[in-house]
Amino acid sequence: MSELFLSFEGIDGSGKSTQARRLAQRLRQEGHAVTLTREPGGSPGAEEIRRLVLEGDPDRWSAETEILLFTAARRDHLEKTIRPALARGEIVITDRFADSTRIFQGITRGDLSATVDRLHDLMIGVEPDLTLLFDLDPATGLARATARAGTELRFEDMGLAFQQKARAGFLALAARHQRFRVIDADADADTVADRVWKAMQTHLA
Amino acid sequence: MSELFLSFEGIDGSGKSTQARRLAQRLRQEGHAVTLTREPGGSPGAEEIRRLVLEGDPDRWSAETEILLFTAARRDHLEKTIRPALARGEIVITDRFADSTRIFQGITRGDLSATVDRLHDLMIGVEPDLTLLFDLDPATGLARATARAGTELRFEDMGLAFQQKARAGFLALAARHQRFRVIDADADADTVADRVWKAMQTHLA
Repeated sequence: MSELFLSFEGIDGSGKSTQARRLAQRLRQEGHAVTLTREPGGSPGAEEIRRLVLEGDPDRWSAETEILLFTAARRDHLEKTIRPALARGEIVITDRFADSTRIFQGITRGDLSATVDRLHDLMIGVEPDLTLLFDLDPATGLARATARAGTELRFEDMGLAFQQKARAGFLALAARHQRFRVIDADADADTVADRVWKAMQTHLA
Repeated sequence: MSELFLSFEGIDGSGKSTQARRLAQRLRQEGHAVTLTREPGGSPGAEEIRRLVLEGDPDRWSAETEILLFTAARRDHLEKTIRPALARGEIVITDRFADSTRIFQGITRGDLSATVDRLHDLMIGVEPDLTLLFDLDPATGLARATARAGTELRFEDMGLAFQQKARAGFLALAARHQRFRVIDADADADTVADRVWKAMQTHLA
């Protein structure tokens, strides 16, 4: 296996971060070089931007400013972490990428969907080879996310109705793009890990 | 006089910040409500983004990421400071606005000019009513800027050749847009202040 760009997407508490770590570990055990990263963040500069966006009052930034900050962080992440790793022939697994911006800003402000897409085309212009969408009942996801929350409560604070809209948005996006595989995430971690591994094998076959 | 949006532009050390303060003071003495502001910054959120951009290694961010951060800061500045002040019928004077991004990024990376313009149209979409360009020999400007520099050395560090290109870029921009007035800034502060006041009166007549 050589360079491959994977993103893990889903609502808060869907287990995607745990599964990203497990997949990275399994791929490494099989001898692959893997870069495991996340958004917002994933490079020193992008992590600083992440702190600006995720800490503090949820109304601190308008949706438009937030989109610009996420896109700035994504550009830095792409330049400093993702592209160099792919150039070394590694497998890159990112916990969230542009689809999260499409969903979370598209939900709070539906009229911004076209703006998000135009900004992405102008400043990012890259999509993952494969996107695994971790799908799960938002009530289950929110309970998990709340249980482990620290100071970064920007999105979890937005509640169950918000997460339900996010789930529907992710499923609609997955239906429109070939690069998505939907993973049923309502199971124990071992079972979900097996589903992830099968999706990987299907993709590579 | 009612709502009016002014920007002051020019190379580092051109005296525009001093002149912006003086103009604000004179307008207030004549009974006008004035908001004096600056970029990058001008609102609490934008000031935080300013610190990310201007402090540290000049190569910390790529030109593309820097443009996104400046645009995020500008969007916040516009929403939180400029538009509310104009809505109250005030005169807004901003020390730098979008033209600075056009020039400083357009110079370091000429191929990004079209991107800067498209990003502005997509996320900002506003131009000042009047832009005063403070024009001056860069050697004089650089000596002034270096004399008063603190920790924010990102642009001053780039040297004389950079400032010469910036001057030429500003003059070319001024030649293309009606909203510009070029102020000869190579004189004592009182003389330049008189030139600014005359340019204001010409604009309002």
